[in-house]
Amino acid sequence: MNKFTHWNEEGRPKMVDISEKDITQRTAIARSTISLSDEVYEAIQQGGIKKGDPTQVAQIAGIMGAKKTADIIPMCHPIMLQGTDFQFEYNKVEVGYELHIQATVKCSGKTGVEMEALTAVSIAALTFYDMCKAVDKNMVIKETYLVQKTGGKSGTFTRE
Amino acid sequence: MNKFTHWNEEGRPKMVDISEKDITQRTAIARSTISLSDEVYEAIQQGGIKKGDPTQVAQIAGIMGAKKTADIIPMCHPIMLQGTDFQFEYNKVEVGYELHIQATVKCSGKTGVEMEALTAVSIAALTFYDMCKAVDKNMVIKETYLVQKTGGKSGTFTRE
Amino acid sequence: MNKFTHWNEEGRPKMVDISEKDITQRTAIARSTISLSDEVYEAIQQGGIKKGDPTQVAQIAGIMGAKKTADIIPMCHPIMLQGTDFQFEYNKVEVGYELHIQATVKCSGKTGVEMEALTAVSIAALTFYDMCKAVDKNMVIKETYLVQKTGGKSGTFTRE
Amino acid sequence: MNKFTHWNEEGRPKMVDISEKDITQRTAIARSTISLSDEVYEAIQQGGIKKGDPTQVAQIAGIMGAKKTADIIPMCHPIMLQGTDFQFEYNKVEVGYELHIQATVKCSGKTGVEMEALTAVSIAALTFYDMCKAVDKNMVIKETYLVQKTGGKSGTFTRE
Amino acid sequence: MNKFTHWNEEGRPKMVDISEKDITQRTAIARSTISLSDEVYEAIQQGGIKKGDPTQVAQIAGIMGAKKTADIIPMCHPIMLQGTDFQFEYNKVEVGYELHIQATVKCSGKTGVEMEALTAVSIAALTFYDMCKAVDKNMVIKETYLVQKTGGKSGTFTRE
Amino acid sequence: MNKFTHWNEEGRPKMVDISEKDITQRTAIARSTISLSDEVYEAIQQGGIKKGDPTQVAQIAGIMGAKKTADIIPMCHPIMLQGTDFQFEYNKVEVGYELHIQATVKCSGKTGVEMEALTAVSIAALTFYDMCKAVDKNMVIKETYLVQKTGGKSGTFTRE
Repeated sequence: MNKFTHWNEEGRPKMVDISEKDITQRTAIARSTISLSDEVYEAIQQGGIKKGDPTQVAQIAGIMGAKKTADIIPMCHPIMLQGTDFQFEYNKVEVGYELHIQATVKCSGKTGVEMEALTAVSIAALTFYDMCKAVDKNMVIKETYLVQKTGGKSGTFTRE
Repeated sequence: MNKFTHWNEEGRPKMVDISEKDITQRTAIARSTISLSDEVYEAIQQGGIKKGDPTQVAQIAGIMGAKKTADIIPMCHPIMLQGTDFQFEYNKVEVGYELHIQATVKCSGKTGVEMEALTAVSIAALTFYDMCKAVDKNMVIKETYLVQKTGGKSGTFTRE
Repeated sequence: MNKFTHWNEEGRPKMVDISEKDITQRTAIARSTISLSDEVYEAIQQGGIKKGDPTQVAQIAGIMGAKKTADIIPMCHPIMLQGTDFQFEYNKVEVGYELHIQATVKCSGKTGVEMEALTAVSIAALTFYDMCKAVDKNMVIKETYLVQKTGGKSGTFTRE
Repeated sequence: MNKFTHWNEEGRPKMVDISEKDITQRTAIARSTISLSDEVYEAIQQGGIKKGDPTQVAQIAGIMGAKKTADIIPMCHPIMLQGTDFQFEYNKVEVGYELHIQATVKCSGKTGVEMEALTAVSIAALTFYDMCKAVDKNMVIKETYLVQKTGGKSGTFTRE
Repeated sequence: MNKFTHWNEEGRPKMVDISEKDITQRTAIARSTISLSDEVYEAIQQGGIKKGDPTQVAQIAGIMGAKKTADIIPMCHPIMLQGTDFQFEYNKVEVGYELHIQATVKCSGKTGVEMEALTAVSIAALTFYDMCKAVDKNMVIKETYLVQKTGGKSGTFTRE
Repeated sequence: MNKFTHWNEEGRPKMVDISEKDITQRTAIARSTISLSDEVYEAIQQGGIKKGDPTQVAQIAGIMGAKKTADIIPMCHPIMLQGTDFQFEYNKVEVGYELHIQATVKCSGKTGVEMEALTAVSIAALTFYDMCKAVDKNMVIKETYLVQKTGGKSGTFTRE
């Protein structure tokens, strides 16, 4: 049995027909983490004393990125996003720091916003990397995943 | 000392002035990995018997995504990409499978294509997730990082 | 009497006011044809033995193109597409082959998806040309037209 | 022998590496034709008495479309267009009229502008259809093809 | 008290959550003015005798720009525009002329179209400048502002 | 004599052919001003105590907007921007405050970046309006103009 809803009968990908689905209120939360050296972290703290901070640019890029999801991910449906927000948190770890990025996306529609939330955190992470790469190109974007989604026929999903 | 080249003197981000930089031939290689369950892997193998494969759509999305980098990452300069290619490789691991994705991007210009390569693999990974999420939403996009870049004033970088 | 709903009273084009229209379920089917030489057709068959096929890239480009319609066609309204699919069929003709491309687009809204279906097949045809032009630049994109549309005040249209 | 330069060794499409190609001055000319009823033609003539004309909107959409080519056609390289212009000509035929659309595109670069010219005329034709479809949905976009291209290693191509 | 609905609790901007808002019919009208020299005005009148006019291109760019608002203004929600129209009027003033540009935008949704109307007139004004700058770069885009908006919880706003 | 370089012989707009122009280093500076009430200004000062500030979002939107110029302004050529920066300055005036916004854009190319600088300040001003409109919709975007441009055949222009 082929469960891949993005493939049509001829074996080529399609944008799934959602016309029979119900409009429900939907949310999705996704998370990503960047590992950074002490050097990057300290440079941010110093530069950040004023008005700037890579997380500012990352958040704005992530919000704009969420709106671009259907333009970036080929089989995604256009969705009318109703709200997007971010949380950032630095943690000291054994070697250097980790920055946790979480995006929450809401919509009311016939399909979920999982990809919008995942795209938002991925673009925020890429932007953070771009803002800091002059200091250290060894930063790594670590686990990126869906934390939770609510709404729709399949109901609530919470990551195991 | 503030090494963050994306911040201007007032503490707000800017697009760095590269007008004095030399035009050189540049390449960048980035990598990402997706961990998937046996169930997803096997569904791909079966569905993939015909003409379709999530890596096909992922590769096309990744190539198109590389071209959108300056539109997605706020402080990136527009770049005339000269070539983009991908490699995909499935590996059996203890629990399930890992799909390794690698993107190589080339340009001739005043600034590098590190962000283009990272954006390309990230969008390919997001697209792969989108193609398979009907089977399993627990897939995780794991370490995404720059493998190598060549060209430019700072020369060759190879990940430690 | 001026039936051109895209012109305003001063003679300049406008995006027609659809606020008074009803939301109905709508579909549109459009078709295009590419004529190709035996040489192109055979090259596809050989290259296609593996995983690739110009119709794969054409289909993905066509689906993404359908989503870009309001960005490409100046007076089109933004539409929330609910599904897009393609059919491809090669026919041997007197000289060479013909590839028939058909796109079906669905939405629920105040205006139809005729332009989305026509844009989808046109972009799929252009992409097919791009994928094969290294073999033969003489390919011709032949008749592109609306086959059928349903929904809306004017009801069903079927090409004469 | 596989001449398809858009496929990589694994059988998946790629953006061809053009880094070794020479920068040359390049042009491309593409043409398309729309067949329209007497009713559409006459409506245009009457509406066009003032300031408007579907070919105005079509030309602007076509020029903007040429600039979007690398965003629309997956394997196209970004190109710095240096000029785009259009010619339109109505011809009376046995049944109704034909509108001939021709686009000329110029660039200086490592790859040609054939796809830009073809995309420009296709989008102009689609836009013309959109502007007039309230009068008649039976219009057909007829043969769309490359007329000529100059520059590059393969030199001048003129349609047979 | 912080009334800035675009900032989240951590002080970083967010896309406001509108999921609890009602869907209402909404309109917005915005206005801008360009001051031009007699030389520019007369050149337009002469060139405009035929089919062209900078206001034609400005109107089309403004309509397309209204559709791009959520892509351009970081915290704007995507909106399904239902109609966009423009009015242009030249006035002789003491020195040279003034061109008044007014855009009216409609939608049915959970948030207003003020930014769409303001973006539409701004892009129309910029386009007008672009069309005429070969004659005179001293043109000034003068007061750009919201004239009126209707619909939504806050009701009708009319500029004081 | 018709000096409008954007119109072709048939009276329809075109993208001017710049293939014969020289590549030179070019800069452009544009300025805009927003007038705001004491209420808006004070709200910004209070909200801005933390990490946020409407000028942050405005600057990022303006930089991203400069990169979108050729997509927004129909007859603009694509340009490889080499740097974009902003300056913001609040001034107390008789009634309320004025915020002065200045954008500087650089490129090396065959055509200037006047439109990129004007688009950058306009989008920054629109974004500032969007960030603050919940407090006061009566803000006005005042004079927007080109301050200076250097490079190209016509040399340096400085606003009279």
